[in-house]
Amino acid sequence: MMTDIPRPDTDKASGISEPDSRLDTSFDLSGYLEAKREILESHLRKIIGRLDSTRELARAMEYSLMAGGKRLRPILAMASAEAVGGDFRLALPAACAIEMIHTYSLIHDDLPAMDNDDLRRGIPTCHRAFSQATAVLAGDALLTHAFSLLGDPWEIFNPSPEKSVLLELVAKISQAAGPLGMVEGQMMDMKAPSITKAWESSYPDENICPDGERLSILKELHALKTGRMISVSVEAGAISAGCSAKQMELLSLYSVNIGLAFQVTDDILNVEGDPAVMGKAAGSDALNRKLTFPALMGLGASREFARDLIQGAISSLDTFKGRADPLKAIAQYILRRNR
Amino acid sequence: MMTDIPRPDTDKASGISEPDSRLDTSFDLSGYLEAKREILESHLRKIIGRLDSTRELARAMEYSLMAGGKRLRPILAMASAEAVGGDFRLALPAACAIEMIHTYSLIHDDLPAMDNDDLRRGIPTCHRAFSQATAVLAGDALLTHAFSLLGDPWEIFNPSPEKSVLLELVAKISQAAGPLGMVEGQMMDMKAPSITKAWESSYPDENICPDGERLSILKELHALKTGRMISVSVEAGAISAGCSAKQMELLSLYSVNIGLAFQVTDDILNVEGDPAVMGKAAGSDALNRKLTFPALMGLGASREFARDLIQGAISSLDTFKGRADPLKAIAQYILRRNR
Repeated sequence: MMTDIPRPDTDKASGISEPDSRLDTSFDLSGYLEAKREILESHLRKIIGRLDSTRELARAMEYSLMAGGKRLRPILAMASAEAVGGDFRLALPAACAIEMIHTYSLIHDDLPAMDNDDLRRGIPTCHRAFSQATAVLAGDALLTHAFSLLGDPWEIFNPSPEKSVLLELVAKISQAAGPLGMVEGQMMDMKAPSITKAWESSYPDENICPDGERLSILKELHALKTGRMISVSVEAGAISAGCSAKQMELLSLYSVNIGLAFQVTDDILNVEGDPAVMGKAAGSDALNRKLTFPALMGLGASREFARDLIQGAISSLDTFKGRADPLKAIAQYILRRNR
Repeated sequence: MMTDIPRPDTDKASGISEPDSRLDTSFDLSGYLEAKREILESHLRKIIGRLDSTRELARAMEYSLMAGGKRLRPILAMASAEAVGGDFRLALPAACAIEMIHTYSLIHDDLPAMDNDDLRRGIPTCHRAFSQATAVLAGDALLTHAFSLLGDPWEIFNPSPEKSVLLELVAKISQAAGPLGMVEGQMMDMKAPSITKAWESSYPDENICPDGERLSILKELHALKTGRMISVSVEAGAISAGCSAKQMELLSLYSVNIGLAFQVTDDILNVEGDPAVMGKAAGSDALNRKLTFPALMGLGASREFARDLIQGAISSLDTFKGRADPLKAIAQYILRRNR
């Protein structure tokens, strides 16, 4: 699995030594996450506060946007701005825009025509709390309004990146979210059951079932569906704070690794959180047919893969020194989280 | 009705004389529309051509984007760039982005949870031709990709506006399309039947039915649902070509007037195109309950209102001289069209 992990050039000779000590810092991550979450949410409230709260559309947008969540993407953006030596506040327009886009994607994914989920973060999904039509429109509105923020951030954000930087953010974020990024990933995810079915008929003998091919599809799916938006969060923070090309290159390595690790650990948590599924894990048809990392690689190898990805991510940040402690701690958190 | 129509300051003293002669030019509108439509569509094809045509998402986007239509909004943008003395090609990034946003809005409006339409422009709607999930995602993808075009137009558009202009276009277009514009208009439209129902119970006696209040709601609905995107088409073309503040002011008057006239004539066409409805037009309950201009004002007054709006629009363009012939001819076309 090691060969799958992008690494900075500087690591090629030395390899990664003492990975465990790298994963141990005294940095207070929970205090950091809490402080940054508060700042983010106060800005999200300002954004929503400028809409007309007597309108159901604004209420539906607020309902989903302020429903909590880890706020991982916007916090990555702020931490990334700090890692390149910048003011994290410069990352706030991108951070808020990315969280609004993330929220729209959840609202649309939950729709009856898509995943048909009734609950999200412990409360009714947007289409359950309002209506399907309102949920479609609230998602559309959050997506569109994210670009209004980037196009004209000055009334809410001070300081704010300069115009040419804001335009670059529009380009990067829309590319990560659009038909060559997140939306295509959601499309692949929706079609995954029929892909699996096609494989079942093409390869009736399990022994020749092409797990390598499945794994490469699984990686592409996640790279598009969740990876691109996680990557662009890190990149957008750095761009907002005026990073150098070399810094961007290293942060891109970090972001690709944590993006994939996030999905691998998600799959592991899904397995470990369900003992019934665990019971029939080893070689069972059900798991083999499912497009998840534990199903295709086994649970042990998935854990090792996630660990390697996180080590790769952290080692990309060597040259950033202490300024990258938050990003390093977030990478560890992705590996060790239990939800 | 005349007091409802915004007019340029220069008209305050003189009023509008000889409106009919103003409405008569020898400009070849159909040749102009055809030429501009071809240029627009060749650029839309290039945009779609850069996506992966083996993917269903790209095919669904292309299916709806290339299904024809009048292309009124993008042609307005190009004509507006010409009116301010600029190269119409500078308006193409905004024109394409606006047409993609218009197409996404039609795809989502047609969904079963919204208007539940099976046909659009004579062919099955996107969710009928593909699936509901694909239609939701194709709409999302067109909306998002529109901002990718504005954020990074250089690979397809040459010449292209400079960065600060592109950022202004992102702001203006997203504001017109978002929760303070088109999406809120669609929300109001969706809720119109329940508004009408509430009125029915509040005002059981038709004689005191507050048509003035209804008319003001109807105008707001259309200003948001269709007006803002028509206005921003005109404005975006002028901004792309580097217009002056005074030019923008006059073009804004033009655009607000044609935006409202477009909807009034749409309502008139709906009535005139259906003799069954026409037969029970005068004072019938069905028509009185419907939020349309003919229902609230009567057919004759609606025609007069549309004519006044178009005259107001055309008179805003006096100082532009012959460069504004296309915009003037398009205004006439809106009044005289039969579809």
